[in-house]
Amino acid sequence: MLNFDLHIPTRIIFGRDTHKQIGTLLQPYAKKVLLHFGGSSIKKSGVYDAVTASLKESNLEFIELGGVVPNPRLSLIHEGIRLCRQEGVDLILAVGGGSVIDSAKAIAMGVCYDGDVWDIFEQQKTITAALPVATVLTIPAAGSESSNGTVVTNEEKQMKLPYGSIHLRPLISVMNPELFFTLPKNQVANGVADMMSHIFERYFTNTLQTDLTDGLCETTLKTIMKNALKVYSTSQNYDAWCQVGFGGTIAHNDLLGLGREQDWACHGMEHELSAIYDVAHGAGLAVLTPAWMQYVYKDNINMFVQFAVNVMGVDVCYRDPDAIVLEGIECLRKFFKQMGLPSTLSELGIDESKLEVMAKKATGIAYGSENPLGGLKKLYWQDVLEIYKLAK
Amino acid sequence: MLNFDLHIPTRIIFGRDTHKQIGTLLQPYAKKVLLHFGGSSIKKSGVYDAVTASLKESNLEFIELGGVVPNPRLSLIHEGIRLCRQEGVDLILAVGGGSVIDSAKAIAMGVCYDGDVWDIFEQQKTITAALPVATVLTIPAAGSESSNGTVVTNEEKQMKLPYGSIHLRPLISVMNPELFFTLPKNQVANGVADMMSHIFERYFTNTLQTDLTDGLCETTLKTIMKNALKVYSTSQNYDAWCQVGFGGTIAHNDLLGLGREQDWACHGMEHELSAIYDVAHGAGLAVLTPAWMQYVYKDNINMFVQFAVNVMGVDVCYRDPDAIVLEGIECLRKFFKQMGLPSTLSELGIDESKLEVMAKKATGIAYGSENPLGGLKKLYWQDVLEIYKLAK
Repeated sequence: MLNFDLHIPTRIIFGRDTHKQIGTLLQPYAKKVLLHFGGSSIKKSGVYDAVTASLKESNLEFIELGGVVPNPRLSLIHEGIRLCRQEGVDLILAVGGGSVIDSAKAIAMGVCYDGDVWDIFEQQKTITAALPVATVLTIPAAGSESSNGTVVTNEEKQMKLPYGSIHLRPLISVMNPELFFTLPKNQVANGVADMMSHIFERYFTNTLQTDLTDGLCETTLKTIMKNALKVYSTSQNYDAWCQVGFGGTIAHNDLLGLGREQDWACHGMEHELSAIYDVAHGAGLAVLTPAWMQYVYKDNINMFVQFAVNVMGVDVCYRDPDAIVLEGIECLRKFFKQMGLPSTLSELGIDESKLEVMAKKATGIAYGSENPLGGLKKLYWQDVLEIYKLAK
Repeated sequence: MLNFDLHIPTRIIFGRDTHKQIGTLLQPYAKKVLLHFGGSSIKKSGVYDAVTASLKESNLEFIELGGVVPNPRLSLIHEGIRLCRQEGVDLILAVGGGSVIDSAKAIAMGVCYDGDVWDIFEQQKTITAALPVATVLTIPAAGSESSNGTVVTNEEKQMKLPYGSIHLRPLISVMNPELFFTLPKNQVANGVADMMSHIFERYFTNTLQTDLTDGLCETTLKTIMKNALKVYSTSQNYDAWCQVGFGGTIAHNDLLGLGREQDWACHGMEHELSAIYDVAHGAGLAVLTPAWMQYVYKDNINMFVQFAVNVMGVDVCYRDPDAIVLEGIECLRKFFKQMGLPSTLSELGIDESKLEVMAKKATGIAYGSENPLGGLKKLYWQDVLEIYKLAK
């Protein structure tokens, strides 16, 4: 087990009706709020009305900035920064899913940064401050409600880059699983694939002696999968949503990856799909993850046997490890299929024409310096290309 | 699953050599520190020298208050409060185990309270501030390094009372599992019993639909038990200590009990043993827990079957639930025995003379108002007496 530094100060208010308390919760921290959101779904669902009523009741001034799209865009973030400065906003309230929260985080750090916020992403600069961000989560998936990260798409440069800092952990996140009842099925499935991937990226490691976090990863994965099937078939299953929703939070708040070398190759490879083809992040991950497993498992077969047995429930008895692992991967493919997720790049509308370009961008070689992806196995651009091809 | 409010702002610095960074870590938060500890063990082990060297290197002034004993005493806490006020201390650094940290927390809130700190415990007053507390953990057990609680013994009144507040979560806790290598075997065992009990108190619940936290409890229990046997036989097993140590932290930082009605009867019953007989908390819990299980299991047999199967590894096949549960309890007794822990009150030197007095104190009836213990099953003083007798 490796040394670690754990710090998750985000307060999580969880359960029925909790979004109606948002004004009271923010009152000690803010005078003027930027209410940040995506499209019209929060207006249709009544969340917008409940949240704004609560803000008004607590005498919090607020201005609005909607229009966040999946794979949140730099242009809107620039607008948000300008707006916050002009209006003297002191807290950003993101009402939405991971894209809205990530956009809010980028605005929050941009307001406190003297220069173009994109530089922080591109040059991985260290930030020392950001406006506080609060969230009302409407899509469980990205884990951004308590993570230290944000991922932003620069649409001009066709680049999607992540950034992380303790200053980006939300101050308060409110999660009422009832708000997930109205999600379209494909968003449910994409979200589940995303949260599972957040665990996979931490779980698959060469670090030894990690019993506790192994177990935490495995039980969270199993819980998410079991309950994801329930909410996929019955969207109003509150208790199942509780498990999936909070599972998505701990999947990505760092707890499950403590003291382990992590991987993150699948996220790196998927970001290229999203940046160029604008596919849903979770759908891209569902396609790439089994292909990645197939390509890398021989480098640490024990870890993949453990996965197949402890997570996917594959029987061990008298079989060779390769057979066990391959059955585990097949079970995962089957699970994604049950959730209506795609299995191939072609189902995502991605042909072979840009695979090499994406492989070279993912590994940085397109920008002049090669940064192989992955922790469990280092992946150079040729490896990434092979994985894309396995997934085609 | 119930609604919940989760807030664990404590930063955890974990791993080899981390205690040597304590000065750097505290530097942004303090000018003058109260260094609080127990006996001479931290001087023998070199921890005292490493910590004070680090404080000096960071130009932090400090004064010392040693002498904390297991079941930390109110009298020393009073002295600490006086000292902090007189010297203008702005942060308390607890170097030790749960007793030292609990003592530090009581001092921290006492300094900010205008009156006798014991009133806060006895009247469960709401506090609004406390000095920041940091910790260097030398005994993994109580979980106080990131919990919001403290338990203090009023030696004059022979009372041991708990208190909890967000203001008592430590600011920073440093955990270097190497510091656990020199612990006496009985302290290792007591600590393990204590952390397991912290999970049991959360795990055994009548709340339904708690898949995720069920799984987190089960995997943490299994990990602690597996690795506890390793460190009990080989005190220098660093990796096993990592699992036990961090297991003890998450056992009691609230994560595992989120959204569940909790129990806490065993802690309530054990506090009376400690208050009157000054027995080690973990040893008392090891004696009482199996007796409690035997007494209450029929009230929620499903939960106890789940425990027997998922945690203790009892075989289900074709047996009646009672047999499964009783084997589970027997396995737990066996585990405690393997750890050299006592099985009966008489092994703790406790005879029958005060069982009724303790049962009446534990349930408050001795003080005029009856507060039955427990969540899974409400325990009145007669029930508590029966459990004490089962354990005698």
